[in-house]
Amino acid sequence: MEYYSGKINKLIESLASLPGIGIKSAQRLAFHILDMPQTEVENLANSMIDAKRQVCYCSQCYTLTDQEICPICKNPNRSQKQIMVVENPRDLAAYEKTGKYEGVYHVLHGAISPMLGIGPSDIRLKELMQRLQQEVEEVIIATNSSLEGETTAMYISKLIKPTGIKVTRIASGVPVGGDLEYIDEVTLLRALEGRTEL
Amino acid sequence: MEYYSGKINKLIESLASLPGIGIKSAQRLAFHILDMPQTEVENLANSMIDAKRQVCYCSQCYTLTDQEICPICKNPNRSQKQIMVVENPRDLAAYEKTGKYEGVYHVLHGAISPMLGIGPSDIRLKELMQRLQQEVEEVIIATNSSLEGETTAMYISKLIKPTGIKVTRIASGVPVGGDLEYIDEVTLLRALEGRTEL
Repeated sequence: MEYYSGKINKLIESLASLPGIGIKSAQRLAFHILDMPQTEVENLANSMIDAKRQVCYCSQCYTLTDQEICPICKNPNRSQKQIMVVENPRDLAAYEKTGKYEGVYHVLHGAISPMLGIGPSDIRLKELMQRLQQEVEEVIIATNSSLEGETTAMYISKLIKPTGIKVTRIASGVPVGGDLEYIDEVTLLRALEGRTEL
Repeated sequence: MEYYSGKINKLIESLASLPGIGIKSAQRLAFHILDMPQTEVENLANSMIDAKRQVCYCSQCYTLTDQEICPICKNPNRSQKQIMVVENPRDLAAYEKTGKYEGVYHVLHGAISPMLGIGPSDIRLKELMQRLQQEVEEVIIATNSSLEGETTAMYISKLIKPTGIKVTRIASGVPVGGDLEYIDEVTLLRALEGRTEL
């Protein structure tokens, strides 16, 4: 790595530390960045710093947003009585793309995984239970259909059942082992329509 | 793209504008960045701004460096009488990795391409000719063996020939470890033409 001068090496190393970017891609990106106009580089750098500084959790659904309450929770046309539980904001976005869901969300920021040592207290479950003290008619569990997602779904349903609130799980039209964010809208809608009571 | 709030969208768009990064990778990177500690994000952003601000062209060989003259040109152990002409700093790094070349370089920053409208005056050719007014024994042309690279090599050799300086071209042939049956005909013919006596 001593074939470039200090600043270039530092840039390549920083880029290579990002997920999915190897040393070759990092080199390519670094030289692209050095070729970009100064203002564009500053825009790119500032968009990172800005996002990191100003993005926080929605105080209601815990998705990432740059406001106190996210636009979905704030929207008066969305039913607050239907809460869809997802693992992360990318999964929320995947369902938003279908344009058909009219309830609100709850973002767990993870799934229960004994393998990785992630327990129920490591995800936003307590916050979900607190929300259920308000008037809620249905909780739709849309965690991934991976082992961790299913475990989390079972755990949540057992937790909510005693409260008498209806708990549903999106249908397994979603292929087993699939990651919500990569699935096409039609399949996602199929899964929403075919949800069954737990 | 309205599924995330403003700052996140802006970050995703900035990242997606980089080469080889699609919208899905940009989303993944954006959420990774939002998960990183504040100081790491600032380091990454600053490494871009720093590199862009402080990296300039070596006044001798025109590679990218953060000094007036790059470490290779400055190195007293490197022969200034042998100049290897390459298309870009990545190609320079590729030859540096061999650790065997003891001359210096000249970086053209491109290759002649009538298709893309890149002519001899758009690359650092004038600067190369100026360097040849000093005592130079050999110019090794190591442009890529693409159409553009070959065109550039031919052009440079014709330009230098009248000065009496020796001009050579890196050999083109079968790559080491390559399997003959998978190599294209042009390369095989090139390898045959360039055969050397054992």
